[in-house]
Amino acid sequence: MLETNLESRIDAVLDALGDALQRKDIDAIVALFEEDGYWRDLLAFTWTLSTQEGKPAIRAMLESQLEAAAPVSIARDRSEPAITQDGATIGWFLIETALGRGTGHLRVRDGKIWTLLTTMSELKGHEEPRGTRRALGAPHHSRTVQETWKEKREREAAELGYTTQPEVLIIGGGQGGLALAARLRQLDVPTIVVEKFPRPGDSWRNRYKSLCLHDPVWYDHMPYLPFPDNWPVYTPKDKIADWLESYAKTMELNCWTSTTCKSASYDEAAGEWTVVVEREGVDVVLRPKQLVFATGMSGKASIPTIKGQDVFRGVQQHSSHHAGPDAWKGKKAVVVGSNNSAHDICAALWENGADVTMLQRSSTHVVKSDTLFEMTTSILYSEKALSEGITTEKADMRSAATPYRLMAELHKPVYADIRERDADFYAKLEKAGFMLDFGEDGSGLFMKYMRRGSGYYIDVGASELIIDGSIKLVSGATIRELTENGVLLEDGRELPADLIVYATGYGSMNGWAADLISQEVADKVGPCWGLGSGTTKDPGPWEGEPRNMWKPTRQPGLWFHGGNLHQSRFYSQYLALQLKARQEGIPVKVFDGRA
Amino acid sequence: MLETNLESRIDAVLDALGDALQRKDIDAIVALFEEDGYWRDLLAFTWTLSTQEGKPAIRAMLESQLEAAAPVSIARDRSEPAITQDGATIGWFLIETALGRGTGHLRVRDGKIWTLLTTMSELKGHEEPRGTRRALGAPHHSRTVQETWKEKREREAAELGYTTQPEVLIIGGGQGGLALAARLRQLDVPTIVVEKFPRPGDSWRNRYKSLCLHDPVWYDHMPYLPFPDNWPVYTPKDKIADWLESYAKTMELNCWTSTTCKSASYDEAAGEWTVVVEREGVDVVLRPKQLVFATGMSGKASIPTIKGQDVFRGVQQHSSHHAGPDAWKGKKAVVVGSNNSAHDICAALWENGADVTMLQRSSTHVVKSDTLFEMTTSILYSEKALSEGITTEKADMRSAATPYRLMAELHKPVYADIRERDADFYAKLEKAGFMLDFGEDGSGLFMKYMRRGSGYYIDVGASELIIDGSIKLVSGATIRELTENGVLLEDGRELPADLIVYATGYGSMNGWAADLISQEVADKVGPCWGLGSGTTKDPGPWEGEPRNMWKPTRQPGLWFHGGNLHQSRFYSQYLALQLKARQEGIPVKVFDGRA
Repeated sequence: MLETNLESRIDAVLDALGDALQRKDIDAIVALFEEDGYWRDLLAFTWTLSTQEGKPAIRAMLESQLEAAAPVSIARDRSEPAITQDGATIGWFLIETALGRGTGHLRVRDGKIWTLLTTMSELKGHEEPRGTRRALGAPHHSRTVQETWKEKREREAAELGYTTQPEVLIIGGGQGGLALAARLRQLDVPTIVVEKFPRPGDSWRNRYKSLCLHDPVWYDHMPYLPFPDNWPVYTPKDKIADWLESYAKTMELNCWTSTTCKSASYDEAAGEWTVVVEREGVDVVLRPKQLVFATGMSGKASIPTIKGQDVFRGVQQHSSHHAGPDAWKGKKAVVVGSNNSAHDICAALWENGADVTMLQRSSTHVVKSDTLFEMTTSILYSEKALSEGITTEKADMRSAATPYRLMAELHKPVYADIRERDADFYAKLEKAGFMLDFGEDGSGLFMKYMRRGSGYYIDVGASELIIDGSIKLVSGATIRELTENGVLLEDGRELPADLIVYATGYGSMNGWAADLISQEVADKVGPCWGLGSGTTKDPGPWEGEPRNMWKPTRQPGLWFHGGNLHQSRFYSQYLALQLKARQEGIPVKVFDGRA
Repeated sequence: MLETNLESRIDAVLDALGDALQRKDIDAIVALFEEDGYWRDLLAFTWTLSTQEGKPAIRAMLESQLEAAAPVSIARDRSEPAITQDGATIGWFLIETALGRGTGHLRVRDGKIWTLLTTMSELKGHEEPRGTRRALGAPHHSRTVQETWKEKREREAAELGYTTQPEVLIIGGGQGGLALAARLRQLDVPTIVVEKFPRPGDSWRNRYKSLCLHDPVWYDHMPYLPFPDNWPVYTPKDKIADWLESYAKTMELNCWTSTTCKSASYDEAAGEWTVVVEREGVDVVLRPKQLVFATGMSGKASIPTIKGQDVFRGVQQHSSHHAGPDAWKGKKAVVVGSNNSAHDICAALWENGADVTMLQRSSTHVVKSDTLFEMTTSILYSEKALSEGITTEKADMRSAATPYRLMAELHKPVYADIRERDADFYAKLEKAGFMLDFGEDGSGLFMKYMRRGSGYYIDVGASELIIDGSIKLVSGATIRELTENGVLLEDGRELPADLIVYATGYGSMNGWAADLISQEVADKVGPCWGLGSGTTKDPGPWEGEPRNMWKPTRQPGLWFHGGNLHQSRFYSQYLALQLKARQEGIPVKVFDGRA
């Protein structure tokens, strides 16, 4: 029986690992790994998100963390059969530490651990009220007047931020802020979300009208409340906005809309923030213990400075302020940039009868949407995956189980296949003058996303419009200046324009910290996102995890949350547990590999 | 291997049944049943909801229906193991008829069919866009201007009812109307829901403030969008109201709120209704083909006529207009009635410091909430059931598999056990003067609900307040008249009162038909609900299914939909398929066992 054999291989390693962990025998633990083995940990040992690469790093982590994490017990998860993949035997386990419980994943080759993932998914004594632990709802009658659910909610909403203070303040009511707030509600952590727009979801509503999610529905579920099975594959922006608005209500979130954050400062001694927000025109001072920026990877518009921007007589917009093509029928538009937004906006303008030029400044990675889904996403997130028993939770854990350095290596052959599969398409696109890449190391889209959050287009048809000339392409050219009537290039060409859209991306989230707290704090924290891969727009040193995301930063009480819907769902769990632990005063020993 | 043996027993019967059905051999089919065997059919054969009891009835049904239903194929559902229960072997199958597909359930004793359930859950060629069939969402770019999701929704909402006509008009935006509208949306049947209150869910919001659902969450899911697993067991009324409001939005329902239906008449020749509704103060004439009353089992308040109602100086309210206890602290209240609402209202008034008397007019069935859940509901609807693989869908089919006549028999021993389990409680309640029953035949709560929709209290604590005298009880007394200051009983006692609440129940839904269409049509249709059991408030003849609910009535184009959340979820599927078949002009041969 092959399966039993696989499982016995996993059992052998897990037994040894569990035994060594309980004995706190660091030599024995380290000896179980391959020389270049990986250990990715989400809170269970390190109380941060960290990946140790190689035996010395693993040893250093254990020397710092094992004492506090223990006692540790490990047991194979018998509901998950072991499998073989990429030349390794893969197994799952349940793990319990002094403070929490979680799951784990390991890849074994020749009896040694190639990769290990350990996670903490709940804190002992603070388990979420789900399933058998859910609230009763109906109060049984007693001799005292009972507050109804509605009265309680209304009282909380009236008091929180005024007569009581939130433990956590989240800035930003997009998927990130709402997912985190929902997790914190379950953990009974008083939380306020401030959202500058009038309704949750408006950050989606306000985008160009043709926008749909570029990720498929199976990848996009919010925590607790999955989309129904009649939900479209690629959600239109207004539909996701409505969903988020309903979500905030259903999950009973304290979401302050039409509220902007004006300033924040941290009192080290008191261990709390003083945050001034303007709620519907009135300043309110909040004193949360923890401050989370969930202002969006795509929150801080970045517009290049170009000579003549004050001279141009037409309209200039950042892509985040471009409403759509309706006003531009028969007009001339230049879209600066060549990523997702640029392509979507160009296509919609062209459909609506505008004369559109895309100005590509640097090479761009393009993958056809269908191909991307078929060759990558659908393996874990699709109806097929579901029919194979790969639930969203399991898919998320499988995604998390691959360290980022290894991920780049594993993705290269996949993107080589993609390049071959769509060779005709790519040839035509390059023939049209499009500057194409597959990432500097050929590792493709997801790595580009993790490294820099930009540099790609998931093709839903605009590439064909570039190939056939419907969308005019100017690539490799540099803008010299804007004139009254258009864009003058360095090579002397002039592009007449009524509209210039800067689809030029976004700045790092720590820019928000500079604006709202101080440049000093922003500098202390350093940039958010990026792995330190040393590729374009992702300078080293190598970090092995996204910088400053979902984990402690160098500024006490300051956190960054964001990413796509998948990341908002998955990492909100770990961020919520970190915040809960601090609320409860649980002794948290954070590992700082940089120290 | 016992299981294989069970399954081979089922296979033997299913093979014979499938073979006989395909050969349209009525003798052979009938011969497979026990003499008093049952066949419950939901659409697959009869295009109505009907139960045939005994061989002659089964034969008559087949003679009428088999020709049109065929060809029929049947296969055991290999995902569902056969089990034994109540002395029978139970199996599941998949069934396909000329027009549709569905599932079935059978109980076999000594090789013969004791009970058979056949259902149609989808129409061939009109499968719902779920799972792998879901919409793509993002339109790939084409050479024509594309309507966005939002533009399409807004256009539909603007046109439907004005420049285009709905196929179906549903009166009532409670769980029934919304569940049905959601089903019809999936089936692409243009539908408008009219709701008299400003927001979907207001029929819940407007009830007394302490109201919570009396059924547990696992029983209450709406179609497509189950409650998240952190939902409370017994949902508070405002929370279910908010959920329904979000549901209407998420499911993209055309819900006309603040809209009342003023009149409806049917044009037999044109096969359509003329319905006048007043939408936010403006009359709109709608011409739907199908008219559904989803006005609620508890929609038409019933208040007894009592001498002196014009003399009494205090406040008189039907329970459906009682907001809660806040205004009645220190005041005297008489609550007429002894069912759920009466108990809930009495308890809340008492908690809030009112002097409360319950006036019980006739005997009432009481079951403790915990006991009811443990002994009945939880078997199919609970975390335990889920952990045993009994999903909501499976639980619903198991519930449907028991014919109502048999159900009464199967429930009697359960309620005998309940009586014994809580003997002390019942003794104390009777000692306090409470007139108690377990249904005329001892079949308990659910049968009382199906027969008359009244006559019971699911105890969440008010009984204890009656036992200890906190809620004063007057039972068996008759009201002679109201005086200026209270209630005068036939026995001469006078109950002073500032408030009289009539928790005296509701009239039949066909009362709405009388009001809005005509008494003639209401009389032709006859009462809704009730099985014809010949017990109190459920006069015969025996129907074997709820009268006029979710199935064709004697008035073409007129339908009734309602019940608790479970029934709204489950039966909306069959009602939606019936409406879809009519929209598509599918030849539907409805069996009328009464003909």
